[in-house]
Amino acid sequence: MGIRDIKEYINSKRELVNAFLDSYFTPPIKPIKLNDAMVYSLMAGGKRLRPILCIASYEACGGKAEEIVSYASALEFIHTYSLIHDDLPAMDNDDLRRGRLTNHKVYGEGMAILAGDGLLTEAFAILSTTDHCSESGFMPPSSSLLRIINSVAKAAGLHGMVAGQAQDLLSEDLAPEEQTLAFIHSHKTAALIGVSVKMGAMLADAPEEAIIKLTGYGANIGLAFQVVDDVLDLTESTETLGKPSGSDERKKKMTYPSLYGIQESKKRAESLISSALACLEGFDDKAWALRDIAAYMLNRKN
Amino acid sequence: MGIRDIKEYINSKRELVNAFLDSYFTPPIKPIKLNDAMVYSLMAGGKRLRPILCIASYEACGGKAEEIVSYASALEFIHTYSLIHDDLPAMDNDDLRRGRLTNHKVYGEGMAILAGDGLLTEAFAILSTTDHCSESGFMPPSSSLLRIINSVAKAAGLHGMVAGQAQDLLSEDLAPEEQTLAFIHSHKTAALIGVSVKMGAMLADAPEEAIIKLTGYGANIGLAFQVVDDVLDLTESTETLGKPSGSDERKKKMTYPSLYGIQESKKRAESLISSALACLEGFDDKAWALRDIAAYMLNRKN
Repeated sequence: MGIRDIKEYINSKRELVNAFLDSYFTPPIKPIKLNDAMVYSLMAGGKRLRPILCIASYEACGGKAEEIVSYASALEFIHTYSLIHDDLPAMDNDDLRRGRLTNHKVYGEGMAILAGDGLLTEAFAILSTTDHCSESGFMPPSSSLLRIINSVAKAAGLHGMVAGQAQDLLSEDLAPEEQTLAFIHSHKTAALIGVSVKMGAMLADAPEEAIIKLTGYGANIGLAFQVVDDVLDLTESTETLGKPSGSDERKKKMTYPSLYGIQESKKRAESLISSALACLEGFDDKAWALRDIAAYMLNRKN
Repeated sequence: MGIRDIKEYINSKRELVNAFLDSYFTPPIKPIKLNDAMVYSLMAGGKRLRPILCIASYEACGGKAEEIVSYASALEFIHTYSLIHDDLPAMDNDDLRRGRLTNHKVYGEGMAILAGDGLLTEAFAILSTTDHCSESGFMPPSSSLLRIINSVAKAAGLHGMVAGQAQDLLSEDLAPEEQTLAFIHSHKTAALIGVSVKMGAMLADAPEEAIIKLTGYGANIGLAFQVVDDVLDLTESTETLGKPSGSDERKKKMTYPSLYGIQESKKRAESLISSALACLEGFDDKAWALRDIAAYMLNRKN
């Protein structure tokens, strides 16, 4: 069965993704400063959660990780763009991310905006490329790739992340309120994490029923991720987080703990993880990594 | 043969595009402020040059405009996003666009950045949608749409617009220099205009030779457009332009006139238009609009 330790699994898939990302800008694109700004944030030590979830989902459907690393990595382009834009002074105005200066602090606001724009656009170039898998002999059908691009665009854009970030921006300083909080969390973070899992199943050309189940797993785990994130911001140190702890509170962000308290939020995360696991019923042992990632997510510290 | 006046042709195709764009956000997406910010710039009276060129190219290859309005309009989403981001204080810092306040002046910088992000992402959702043409019974092959998405992503991103805008930003205050100027113009403006024409041919599933010729037409006309734009900034009034005239000079932008002078720039634009027309050799009368648009572009005032 190969490696069964989830930490080793995550590390080995992260290596695959990092190798792809690392080689992507070799040779660099012009102008070099734009290239460097993108690489700076792309290679800043991210967890690669979205690509890893995509790969684990693909493997749960019987595929081999190596076949889809490029497509999975496109999700990290989108995630990185969102971090660069979120950190801008006009948005969350953060100076620190993963223990390093944020993109605009190093490259200036204009270049940071363009680095984000470039990463987002290039993600769709990667998802629509049909020849970079020729080494492995694997080639998803054009119709699957089109459906994937459509799902990813919706989850990253107006039916997901961009809408969630806009609502987040509009809700600062407002009293926490259940419906708005649910909208922000499901759109800002859960949508892209959810589509990462769905995408793995679509790349595997899995039966519709399996795609629906894995989409359910993804939606629950995506929401759980954000609830845990909110709690960690209050309970962990700046050092552990790699960004200032307690910053949600200072910025008067609408979060789960601000509405329900820390204990209730933890319970909510646990319940979401249970729901995620329930969606995997009927999947065989090839879904072990998806199962173990769910538990792992609950116990993460940053 | 229908309408043969190019102004009427442009107006009628613009109406088609405007009708699609106008209905796109009905019902509006949430949050409503994000919706309004996008609509504000999308419906600000743009020329719709890119969608019209796409449609004219599609018609030159034997298609009917109505079949591809949605795909063509996606180009206007991308163009509008680029204007919103370019106008930001960290970029060109413009207060006025098409005679109205720029997006961030009305909605704030954070919302303007998100409106741009949302429009860009939604463009790829539109290009990957396969069911909105069912009314006309037209449906491009999945493989064509994938190729189109790939070409558009490259032209809008790191092999085109984003790279050009980054170089433009880096070149302010520098002495004009031939190679850099050529890079900026071919990437910042010409790439997206060029791919608009190419896309029309690809939607029509035209023979590779026709796609290559129309790509050549697009590249030349795209470059001509930017050279004319540089000249107009110096020779037309703020009122005619809908934005402050002479602003390139004030911002010390690297432009054609700054390097070659106005007269030489006009000659260069004429020569590019001739090259564009030469690419249409072998096309029959269905390419009349593409031919007339080339001449029209040379004589535009804004």
